[in-house]
Amino acid sequence: MRPILDRTHDAAAKSWVETANLPGDFPIQNLPFGVFRPRGSTAAPRVGVAIGSFVLDLAGCAKDGLLNATPVPAKACEAPTLNALMALGEPHWWVLRNRLHDLLRSDAEAAIRRRVEAHLLPLAQAELLAPAVIGDYTDFYASIHHATNVGSLFRPDNPLLPNYKYVPIGYHGRASSIVVSGTPVRRPCGQRKPGEQPPQFGESRQLDYELELGFFVGPGNTQGTPVPIASAEAHIFGVCLVNDWSARDIQAWEYQPLGPFLAKSFATSLSPWVVTLDALAPFRTGAYRRAAGDPPPLPYLSHADDEQYGGFDITLEVFLRSQKMREQNLPAARLSQGSFREMYWTLAQMLTHHASNGCNLRPGDLLASGTVSGAAAESRGCLLELTRRGAEPLPLPSGETRSFLEDGDEVVLRGYCEREGFVRIGLGECSGQVISGG
Amino acid sequence: MRPILDRTHDAAAKSWVETANLPGDFPIQNLPFGVFRPRGSTAAPRVGVAIGSFVLDLAGCAKDGLLNATPVPAKACEAPTLNALMALGEPHWWVLRNRLHDLLRSDAEAAIRRRVEAHLLPLAQAELLAPAVIGDYTDFYASIHHATNVGSLFRPDNPLLPNYKYVPIGYHGRASSIVVSGTPVRRPCGQRKPGEQPPQFGESRQLDYELELGFFVGPGNTQGTPVPIASAEAHIFGVCLVNDWSARDIQAWEYQPLGPFLAKSFATSLSPWVVTLDALAPFRTGAYRRAAGDPPPLPYLSHADDEQYGGFDITLEVFLRSQKMREQNLPAARLSQGSFREMYWTLAQMLTHHASNGCNLRPGDLLASGTVSGAAAESRGCLLELTRRGAEPLPLPSGETRSFLEDGDEVVLRGYCEREGFVRIGLGECSGQVISGG
Repeated sequence: MRPILDRTHDAAAKSWVETANLPGDFPIQNLPFGVFRPRGSTAAPRVGVAIGSFVLDLAGCAKDGLLNATPVPAKACEAPTLNALMALGEPHWWVLRNRLHDLLRSDAEAAIRRRVEAHLLPLAQAELLAPAVIGDYTDFYASIHHATNVGSLFRPDNPLLPNYKYVPIGYHGRASSIVVSGTPVRRPCGQRKPGEQPPQFGESRQLDYELELGFFVGPGNTQGTPVPIASAEAHIFGVCLVNDWSARDIQAWEYQPLGPFLAKSFATSLSPWVVTLDALAPFRTGAYRRAAGDPPPLPYLSHADDEQYGGFDITLEVFLRSQKMREQNLPAARLSQGSFREMYWTLAQMLTHHASNGCNLRPGDLLASGTVSGAAAESRGCLLELTRRGAEPLPLPSGETRSFLEDGDEVVLRGYCEREGFVRIGLGECSGQVISGG
Repeated sequence: MRPILDRTHDAAAKSWVETANLPGDFPIQNLPFGVFRPRGSTAAPRVGVAIGSFVLDLAGCAKDGLLNATPVPAKACEAPTLNALMALGEPHWWVLRNRLHDLLRSDAEAAIRRRVEAHLLPLAQAELLAPAVIGDYTDFYASIHHATNVGSLFRPDNPLLPNYKYVPIGYHGRASSIVVSGTPVRRPCGQRKPGEQPPQFGESRQLDYELELGFFVGPGNTQGTPVPIASAEAHIFGVCLVNDWSARDIQAWEYQPLGPFLAKSFATSLSPWVVTLDALAPFRTGAYRRAAGDPPPLPYLSHADDEQYGGFDITLEVFLRSQKMREQNLPAARLSQGSFREMYWTLAQMLTHHASNGCNLRPGDLLASGTVSGAAAESRGCLLELTRRGAEPLPLPSGETRSFLEDGDEVVLRGYCEREGFVRIGLGECSGQVISGG
């Protein structure tokens, strides 16, 4: 097995790409993968990694012979999406990461550096695209705090259902309407039923965001063949930010008995950079420490060593900037901050559960965590929770308040990892502006 | 607009393919589309239509110049799936159907007939494949009889939820695990909670089938742009049979609050032939006649003329053959027979509802009706309903009984349309045998 921590995590390593050494999301220790093309062009999409304020064109590097030492992943990087690279599996990801680290390190030979430099494009000149063709999208519900908060609004006498501590609850989402960060999101129409009035069809009046962590399937499993939890992470390529936009009024009226449908399927936004589990290695933490009296996970979902394994300490934040705030030149306001370490179920548990019935996962499939909310009030990952379904509107620096999202509101999700002795890495951002449905 | 009924529906029309004139599913009035390759080969999949006991290779016909009069759909038939043809839209489907009708009609010129004959393959020598790459799969719940029967088992005091008569309830299914008829289905494992015992993980003991009608999206809609009901059918290429295999014990424990997930995602079976709406035209019927006191559909779901439009009279049947029945040379036993005309929501209403929030549907996406159950006891489309959740086991001709499916059981769905003055057309069959999960 490859080492969990290696020289690619070395805090002393610097890059000759100077902006990678400044505080930011994309130091040489990160090297997240994405898909891009030059802004304003209609060129075929290309695979790249973010480094400082640049994207490194991996197809270009491969063509130039810079990845000859790693021919298999180099070939996969010539595809227009990350699916082929995702399908290869972690030994290939690891050797590619190491090779890219070497190419970009400040001690790289000058000749190499000049060749690599030719394949750098400033991020400001890149159009970032969806990282993969997503065959299926599954959304979980892995924060017990979110489940409890939401449950208390809809079922005050029975907030957390009896299955929650046994089953990593999830449901199938809509793959077709997944969009990349920056895509405007149109306010959806739908059926809503205000109080005792008959149901009406019209624009949602309770549009919300949901702060989630997404993760992409690497190598898939054959239909009928589950994935043991010990090998679950070998099926995970990396993580991104997901905004699972939700129309709460549509959701409340439609969701029984088969779950959310049109309340979610109008749009789901993704951050463009996929941070690998290799890059996240320094920020591992134990699985969720269950409260005394909680049942242990069933054996098929039990991590061998709960103390050191399973969780990731990723700080996740939500910012909002309204039209009025832009007019007043006010910066985006932070609405919440929490950590992924507070999730009740780990990525591995979600993936293993998903495949436990023999369901086949395919490279590039997207799984998402569900809203990431922590125990603290300031870590609630959606407006439904933050405003108690609109009952306690949030004040904004412009003097406005928000119960739910208004047209013109821009929502930005951010994520990053920090730990003493390691260089901070970031997930970049996932943004979307609400536009009128009319 | 093209005529609803035209010469391709003429009951007097015969084919020079003699088996198409015998009683069966695939007369010249049907011409369903599918994807095949010669059995035992690894050749690239090809688009074909079923005619009698043959499949006509459309890519071969196109290459041979037989479809020169319809170059656009002919080109689409050179693809390895039906997605490209589905994307073209109904004028193209109609001209292709007419051309194929002419080529196969008994009055076709002998020279033409000889050329066409060269592209016929006996169905017995064809391996039938999934008709399309399915981007997203959505399952509805459009039988009020099914919803009421199931509701009465899980919520005796509240069988039909208040949203049912307003909202065409649906949820996202799993696309990756859709398989074509004939593929064995492995009994899934999962969490189940027997009575007051703690939850356990193991093989499902309540495996069930669900008889459904599936329909494929033709031309898609742009994200953010709904589909008015008046044009909904222009987005539907055709229909097939769907068996939405369901593990009832897993479903009962997992489905709240986000709906069915692993209880369904282990496998969904499809019949290989897609019968176009053109072929179904003689079997149109009105939309469901709602009971007095039921609300009318909201305006966005209202058919302009309920009397003549919206419904389809398709007879749907389920057969079961156990291992013991095979050993005793007993034929499959029919478990149920009903009609799609009893569905509360039409195909057009389901599609329009699906896109009403701006969700983009793509060519080849699969929508399914949910279990087709009618008012009569013999028309219940799953064992859950037929056996009242196992309380009233069904007798089989072998002397066995069934509460739920046993290993070795083969389930076969069949569908066909009959009407005085028209030739019977069939949907073919959707079969699957349950194999042990071990």
